[in-house]
Amino acid sequence: MFEDAELGHAIDKGTYDARVPTLRSELLDAQFALKDAKQFPVVLLVGGVEGGGRGETVNALTSWLDPRHVEVNGMGEPSDEELERPRMWRFWRALPPKGKVGIFFGSWYTAPILQASLTKGHARWAMLEQRIDEIVRFERMLSEEGTLVLKFWFHLSKDAQRKRIKELKKDPHTRWRVTGIDEDYFKKYDRFREVSAHTLRHTSTALAPWLVVEGIDRRYRELYVAEELLRAIKARLASPKAARPTPARSSDIPEVDAKRTLLSELDLTKKVSKNKYEKDLEKWQGELALLARHKAFKDHSVVVVFEGNDAAGKGGTIRRVTGAVDARVVRVVPIAAPSDEEKAHPYLWRFWRQLPRQGNITIFDRSWYGRVLVERVEGFAAPYDWERAYGEINDFEEEMVNHGTIVCKFWLAISKAEQLRRFKEREQVSFKTFKITEEDWRNRKKWDAYSDAVCDMVGRTSSTKAPWTLVEANDKYHARLKVLKTLCARIEKGLR
Amino acid sequence: MFEDAELGHAIDKGTYDARVPTLRSELLDAQFALKDAKQFPVVLLVGGVEGGGRGETVNALTSWLDPRHVEVNGMGEPSDEELERPRMWRFWRALPPKGKVGIFFGSWYTAPILQASLTKGHARWAMLEQRIDEIVRFERMLSEEGTLVLKFWFHLSKDAQRKRIKELKKDPHTRWRVTGIDEDYFKKYDRFREVSAHTLRHTSTALAPWLVVEGIDRRYRELYVAEELLRAIKARLASPKAARPTPARSSDIPEVDAKRTLLSELDLTKKVSKNKYEKDLEKWQGELALLARHKAFKDHSVVVVFEGNDAAGKGGTIRRVTGAVDARVVRVVPIAAPSDEEKAHPYLWRFWRQLPRQGNITIFDRSWYGRVLVERVEGFAAPYDWERAYGEINDFEEEMVNHGTIVCKFWLAISKAEQLRRFKEREQVSFKTFKITEEDWRNRKKWDAYSDAVCDMVGRTSSTKAPWTLVEANDKYHARLKVLKTLCARIEKGLR
Repeated sequence: MFEDAELGHAIDKGTYDARVPTLRSELLDAQFALKDAKQFPVVLLVGGVEGGGRGETVNALTSWLDPRHVEVNGMGEPSDEELERPRMWRFWRALPPKGKVGIFFGSWYTAPILQASLTKGHARWAMLEQRIDEIVRFERMLSEEGTLVLKFWFHLSKDAQRKRIKELKKDPHTRWRVTGIDEDYFKKYDRFREVSAHTLRHTSTALAPWLVVEGIDRRYRELYVAEELLRAIKARLASPKAARPTPARSSDIPEVDAKRTLLSELDLTKKVSKNKYEKDLEKWQGELALLARHKAFKDHSVVVVFEGNDAAGKGGTIRRVTGAVDARVVRVVPIAAPSDEEKAHPYLWRFWRQLPRQGNITIFDRSWYGRVLVERVEGFAAPYDWERAYGEINDFEEEMVNHGTIVCKFWLAISKAEQLRRFKEREQVSFKTFKITEEDWRNRKKWDAYSDAVCDMVGRTSSTKAPWTLVEANDKYHARLKVLKTLCARIEKGLR
Repeated sequence: MFEDAELGHAIDKGTYDARVPTLRSELLDAQFALKDAKQFPVVLLVGGVEGGGRGETVNALTSWLDPRHVEVNGMGEPSDEELERPRMWRFWRALPPKGKVGIFFGSWYTAPILQASLTKGHARWAMLEQRIDEIVRFERMLSEEGTLVLKFWFHLSKDAQRKRIKELKKDPHTRWRVTGIDEDYFKKYDRFREVSAHTLRHTSTALAPWLVVEGIDRRYRELYVAEELLRAIKARLASPKAARPTPARSSDIPEVDAKRTLLSELDLTKKVSKNKYEKDLEKWQGELALLARHKAFKDHSVVVVFEGNDAAGKGGTIRRVTGAVDARVVRVVPIAAPSDEEKAHPYLWRFWRQLPRQGNITIFDRSWYGRVLVERVEGFAAPYDWERAYGEINDFEEEMVNHGTIVCKFWLAISKAEQLRRFKEREQVSFKTFKITEEDWRNRKKWDAYSDAVCDMVGRTSSTKAPWTLVEANDKYHARLKVLKTLCARIEKGLR
């Protein structure tokens, strides 16, 4: 991995001085075109060995670029707000919007590589493999969402590093940067090298390859990175938007032969009497209230997703949940059209930014599943894009669960006849008319297509850690109780 | 203040039960109209004595409202990210957008009242007075920006409170809420009462009055708050947008008799030779780099504002600043059109959200001064609105400075002739053409109006704590050096 970066690459002053002025104005032009097109963001990762010139190169780069459209994220120690969310939250919140360059000095590679370098024995590799898998999927998602991902690794051989750090220590202006780096540090070099080589090899993908920069010569590493950044932006701007590949499965929703589906098998006649409902409601709301006040709850967060047919009773059900717990710890996030800031980021960004701190509950009224439901059925997303969404969603939820978030997902199902009855009722009752729109009637005409999408969604995103619960909702009482009961059981299990 | 709230107000079950169903649907209607109109947000503050029923009332309210468009902010202990910003930052970040209701359980009143209740002697009042002033100005700004501010104080007499807490302690379901409240607590009641009465009296304004709710009867306090919320939203929706009052000063920019202005007095012929520039640039950049690495810097943040004539050289100057410090601690925020999320919040929200954490520098390329510059001259803001902006901006900057932020503001001034020369040059040099637009030529025609606005701005917003520095920028070398020198001096002073 590092062989080519130990050859002593260098660029002489003449070549450098001749190139830099034009390079700078070309960079500015490219950056301006990037900003103007607003088609994609650039994510530039900087990693590597101590003394390899990462900081100097980033500073050179930012002094050449228009500083208004570059953001440098020095990802040091996470803050407490960051520690209370899944690992990747702090990187999601720092992702640049379309048209901007985000430089990550320290990235999602830093912790895994350091941790693996410090861990002894075989455990190291098992842990590392898992993180590598996550990273590959994350970066693939970024690329698929249009982000231009550039990854630079600044390398020095052991000898070169030793020499470089000695130099830095001698100069009073740079001494501060290498305090704490002693002989003990070099002892770890070999392990660090082995771990990072392994990581780089396995995370170099077609869309986001690693570029290893020899860090020994200032002029070489500056030109290397700047030229590559320039080339990549220009290439991307010049290439027409890649056509989406056709997914393996047909994008047309096929007629399903089998009449038995997850939805058709639901017993929608399930009913609860008013009496029993009122008694049980109090019981389960009380149970939920107790759980939310449980000592262990402070170390967890809860994410609840509500999806369902139009008029299936999501709103009323959500109110029965929020009514049970302290209003200070619960937030309902209605998912409608994204804001322009949200549109400038990858699809899942708008959901990531809403994730609760520990001790809190966030209820999504519709959710990230929009991509595999309405966007699929209405053709707002290309088949390739909603196909890949299943995997991305699984990854997203897995990250939450691994962090200790309890994830509950409910599909509220009603029959076609019951929906018609409710639509008509809504049109009649004055203060409910705002709940029924032309769109509802349009969606209704695609009932079968939606049903197919729901079955696929449940099949492909229901996991032990984040299972779907299908709720028979023709009877509102039954639906609300089932949701509350399930929620209590899942939280209780999660707190154990 | 509290006399009326110790009379034993209560509502019987019959009246309550008869009213609630209609009240709920009226609330939902009002909330829907609010959401639909998207004209203003509602901020509802909840304060008062322990045991006064604040929590129960908020929960009743949220169970009646559509939970998708209410946000309850339980403002407990601030997080570390919040502690690193000015006091009001955590409230700014929680302000609801237009169309939504934000309930603040614990608010900007909590800390001042508690602190003053715990402080003995005269110091208490001095501190409190200052905070009251700040709050009044803050709430006036919210109201002027269109926010409907409702403030409810839940009151109990000393005896009633004692009785109520006894009850809560008896019930195993509510005991948890009053643990830690003992006799010692009641001893402080009188002081707490005195301090809060004083605070409430002085913060009850025409646009944001306090409403004191007797907390003894559940039905009474629920109806009181819900009816008032309903009334206030309906009244605001029904009233046509209030016409802006005419400010005392004429909105037409008057011909200034005196030929001497802050700008005309600048000696724009100031010049620095290339030789001296290169030497001094290195010196001051080095100085700035040292300051940014100073130990004390970790406890401060720096906010730099750049304003100036078009083509005055803001970009180049900013690059000389960012080039001097570690790219990880500096961020440049270009101010262009606001995003739709920003438009849904008060004017200053988009700047508050960009304030740096400690140890960081944020450079604003154009800023909140847009309101008293371009928005004033072009008539985008009504005279009343830009007139009030001076005060709001002073408050904003004072909050930053009081927190320990070092605030530096630069106006880069060039002559009309020099601007023409630079415009023409930009049109000629290929990679600079993007910097010159039709708008620049249009702005130029209003040179005098802009000059007047600049003089007013400097006169009214330059303070000892956050002074303006006027920079003679006909000579770029001189301008850059002056900015760097000033910045160094201000940071050095701030760190002392």
